Amino acid sequence: MYYTIKWEDDVVSMLDQRLLPVEEIYRHYTHYTDVAHAITSMVIRGAPAIGIATAMGVALAAANIQAKSLDQMKQELHEACDLFYGTRPTAVNLSWAIKRMKSIISAADNVDSLKEQLAAEARKIHEEDVQVNKKIGENGHQFLKDGDVVMTHCNAGALATGGYGTALGVIRKAVEEGKNLKVYACETRPYLQGARLTAWELMQDNIEVVLITDNMAGHFMKSGEIQRVIVGADRIAANGDTANKIGTYTHSLLAKHHGIPFYVAAPVSTLDVETKKGDDIVIEERSVDEVAYIQGVQIAPEGVIVRNPAFDVTPAENITAIITEKGVVEEPSKKGITHLCS
Amino acid sequence: MYYTIKWEDDVVSMLDQRLLPVEEIYRHYTHYTDVAHAITSMVIRGAPAIGIATAMGVALAAANIQAKSLDQMKQELHEACDLFYGTRPTAVNLSWAIKRMKSIISAADNVDSLKEQLAAEARKIHEEDVQVNKKIGENGHQFLKDGDVVMTHCNAGALATGGYGTALGVIRKAVEEGKNLKVYACETRPYLQGARLTAWELMQDNIEVVLITDNMAGHFMKSGEIQRVIVGADRIAANGDTANKIGTYTHSLLAKHHGIPFYVAAPVSTLDVETKKGDDIVIEERSVDEVAYIQGVQIAPEGVIVRNPAFDVTPAENITAIITEKGVVEEPSKKGITHLCS
Repeated sequence: MYYTIKWEDDVVSMLDQRLLPVEEIYRHYTHYTDVAHAITSMVIRGAPAIGIATAMGVALAAANIQAKSLDQMKQELHEACDLFYGTRPTAVNLSWAIKRMKSIISAADNVDSLKEQLAAEARKIHEEDVQVNKKIGENGHQFLKDGDVVMTHCNAGALATGGYGTALGVIRKAVEEGKNLKVYACETRPYLQGARLTAWELMQDNIEVVLITDNMAGHFMKSGEIQRVIVGADRIAANGDTANKIGTYTHSLLAKHHGIPFYVAAPVSTLDVETKKGDDIVIEERSVDEVAYIQGVQIAPEGVIVRNPAFDVTPAENITAIITEKGVVEEPSKKGITHLCS
Repeated sequence: MYYTIKWEDDVVSMLDQRLLPVEEIYRHYTHYTDVAHAITSMVIRGAPAIGIATAMGVALAAANIQAKSLDQMKQELHEACDLFYGTRPTAVNLSWAIKRMKSIISAADNVDSLKEQLAAEARKIHEEDVQVNKKIGENGHQFLKDGDVVMTHCNAGALATGGYGTALGVIRKAVEEGKNLKVYACETRPYLQGARLTAWELMQDNIEVVLITDNMAGHFMKSGEIQRVIVGADRIAANGDTANKIGTYTHSLLAKHHGIPFYVAAPVSTLDVETKKGDDIVIEERSVDEVAYIQGVQIAPEGVIVRNPAFDVTPAENITAIITEKGVVEEPSKKGITHLCS
């Protein structure tokens, strides 16, 4: 059985998701700057998994740093936190994980115990994430009915989290409850997380999956083949507007037009109550090459101009319910989501 | 300067569009079955170009067939027509071209003159197509305003026709008229006609083009970056419902939601008045490998189940206007399109 990420004896190990589904290769990092680079270069991705990798990276920094004093240690750890802060701008779990690690750093009164505390906190963040996902599954599986075809976008699965998954966690739980589901996985250009990761992950669990290109979603909704849509989230604003992988907004509009329920499954750590609405969320633009090349193969003319926003924002009014570990908010456009954070 | 297809001295030559934009290689066919195979394997694609290739293929069959009598010649030519009929099921221009060639075959009273007549008819179909496209451009360019960003899907350009293009013909004409336009080309999965062909073709003509993935369309419409959408068509039913490359339906819904005009540019030969409405159009499903592999590179797990409809149907009510060489039908859902065929 595969794992997404692991901390063991001052080594951070992760499955290199860039090579899936053709190769299953694990990377082992002993220096925190390599963990930061792994996040930037998408060895690991998915908002909750990025949070865990960041926490482990900060813990690893504490193991790497040879400081002469507690103050120096704290200062260098804050610099390490800043490095992680810049790796992926949209994922709120990243800053949430840094905040948790920083509060440990601030409270520390001893270099050795600080190292241990940070390692323990990173492990705790990982374990909590798996439990949170299972709780999201418990809270959400009621919405998926026996016989449903459920469409998903990108990978909000075990590979995007510490394990089990958010959107795919809800699907997993429904299947565990004996419901017969089929998943339509949108391939999710440009990075193909749906084709490479979601299809792979569901096949590993023997959950029936059908791969489609992103632009087929409307066609299959119109033909009546899709009963539900469920996706993850990278950041949810206080009014329920949700940033998620590019294409999610389009799917939400299609679902609304066709009367298909559209669910967002995410941990409370994805809620960003300081961001009032979706328009305030900064959208990361990634490289030209992600669009113009696929796995190194050139698919567009040399020198073509490309736009490559990694995320878009789905307005709360397109979302039927936001499913978290602390409960479900139906009609988030009317109810907001800030009460979940209290 | 490149060309899409050419008939010369009993040789059908075409640019191998499967290799664009990396290589510009021409194929030369001296036997009609190779032309049929070129259509099936997508050396050439695009409804009008398929019609021309079919006509040239039938003319080539007449050059290939060694018949003892006029009757035998006619019978073998009808068999050749049947072969072409099965190459691509959705493009109505294909059966329209066959119909024109068959009426020449039926009227013939001499083997040698039949060969010449078929060759002349194929050349005429080609020349007419270029003129038709230029007329579509003249009729349509009024809808594109100076400074517009115009989104298009797939390739309805010179490469999809005898030359000049339908949707891209309208853009070309607007640019020739001095309008400053920018084109957002959707890459058009799975076959990437937008990335490989539209971007290449527009760059050849120094028309400003920005490549985006299909799932970015909604995001850029919401952000106000797109002012118009124009696409081609593979088959237009009597009520104006339009079959075009998979993803077109989704774009039409997005455009409608965002108040963006959505135009279809196509020759009258694309109108199929015998098909009453979109639901009656047969949608070609293509191979698993087109989705699971990109230019030979595996992007999905071995053995994954795939759906691959090549087209979808855009209802007439999502179309602002249908632009043809015989005139423009605004609000086709109210007016129908059958009067254009009279």
